[in-house]
Amino acid sequence: MLTAEPELPITPDDLARRRELKLIALQGIPEVELGSDLPRLLTAAVEHNGLRLESDDVVVIAQKIVSKSEGRSVRLATVKPSPRALELARIADKDPRLVELMLSESREVLRAKTGVLILEHRLGFVMANAGIDQSNVPGSDGEEIALLLPSDPDESARRIRAGLRSACGCDVGVVINDSFGRAWRNGVTGVAIGVAGIPALVDLRGSTDREGRMLRVTQVAAADELAAAASLVMGQADEGTPAVLARGFPYARRESAARELVRPHAEDLFR
Amino acid sequence: MLTAEPELPITPDDLARRRELKLIALQGIPEVELGSDLPRLLTAAVEHNGLRLESDDVVVIAQKIVSKSEGRSVRLATVKPSPRALELARIADKDPRLVELMLSESREVLRAKTGVLILEHRLGFVMANAGIDQSNVPGSDGEEIALLLPSDPDESARRIRAGLRSACGCDVGVVINDSFGRAWRNGVTGVAIGVAGIPALVDLRGSTDREGRMLRVTQVAAADELAAAASLVMGQADEGTPAVLARGFPYARRESAARELVRPHAEDLFR
Repeated sequence: MLTAEPELPITPDDLARRRELKLIALQGIPEVELGSDLPRLLTAAVEHNGLRLESDDVVVIAQKIVSKSEGRSVRLATVKPSPRALELARIADKDPRLVELMLSESREVLRAKTGVLILEHRLGFVMANAGIDQSNVPGSDGEEIALLLPSDPDESARRIRAGLRSACGCDVGVVINDSFGRAWRNGVTGVAIGVAGIPALVDLRGSTDREGRMLRVTQVAAADELAAAASLVMGQADEGTPAVLARGFPYARRESAARELVRPHAEDLFR
Repeated sequence: MLTAEPELPITPDDLARRRELKLIALQGIPEVELGSDLPRLLTAAVEHNGLRLESDDVVVIAQKIVSKSEGRSVRLATVKPSPRALELARIADKDPRLVELMLSESREVLRAKTGVLILEHRLGFVMANAGIDQSNVPGSDGEEIALLLPSDPDESARRIRAGLRSACGCDVGVVINDSFGRAWRNGVTGVAIGVAGIPALVDLRGSTDREGRMLRVTQVAAADELAAAASLVMGQADEGTPAVLARGFPYARRESAARELVRPHAEDLFR
């Protein structure tokens, strides 16, 4: 049929080339404990959701369950706050035992005021409360428990990736995410604290735009963008899901680490 | 069949409840110019990609094409740098005419050093270069053009949303995104600078976790997480796509604005 303004017909080729990212919350992951085999739980959850892992999928995992599986919970009753923790706890209006743990996990206190404690974590991340979380960690008989970040989340991501490769025979990427606040924007967003098998940063140096001009923005924090996307479907609170299957990550894969995302001190203008 | 460890069978109900977010890069959007009808171009692109807009879809649009359609490009030859712009341009090693535009779009200079100019944009966003972009903006006969942010991106988002409602008869959300750097992390990520029809912030105050403990993290920057997800599939450089269809945004919709994402001065600890 001839028309004045011919429609651009969509061809099977167009559809095949369609750039699409799909993020699926993995339901049915049981409560994770010290020693839980995360690759096995994740593989089972993928199947439970009617899917199969494929090479180039990326599994995004909430920090909380990685920390739990690695036994990073601490009984608050066992923590003795130092004088410095007591002083900071008073300023920030926080539990001194939690503050003691935060200090033990940190290199530097950047800011302290009522309700707010911004620290540089020993891994280099600038974040509130050194990532220590008191919510959603069960203690038997009401005992108070705090949960620290994994000792080495990049190593955790590599180990989980290797486990998934054994379990499914395919090469997936792994991102461990957490929620960070931002200096000048309200609300938290998901960020990558552990990365294996996908680029944390994508370097566009040398790329040109449509007019052939050199691009000025040279690096995209691709793993953080994926962590944020996954955080959106993980949700929060009661009905939260601690892992997400991402299919369609668009950048070329390479060995990498979340460490790449930490800005070096020498380039930090806001300390 | 009976087995020692019964598999959890997946039911059609499980699949229906499956929380899934899909992000589709909308191919086939032509070069946008002053006066381009974005709702019409977006609707055509959705159809070109073999899809139909549905209520509760969210269309994420790159700032660049919104600015172009609103005539926010400036010929650099017409810009006369002030003494202050000349001084800052010398410090930051940037084109003084661009710096003049940056200052005219800003309220405050936060940091200036070689290659870096961090400003508070008149809309309240703390960002590099006041969001002014010199790449990918065509000037006839090689003339140099800079592109400013839309005058009021929340208003742009509302207008595009209304246009899409007229075009498709459905109520979609709209996010206008841009790429921002972060104070302590390398690389840029997509953030929302204009929002209509979805919550910019999701307030979890009053929510409890699985153990019934009150959640401490109270606000999620959901529109920023979606902007980052979309940025990932938009890509950059030559083969970049300036709009993304997001299907499956998981939070309850409400009227909102990107303005909610700007942290008030009184709460800013890092100026």
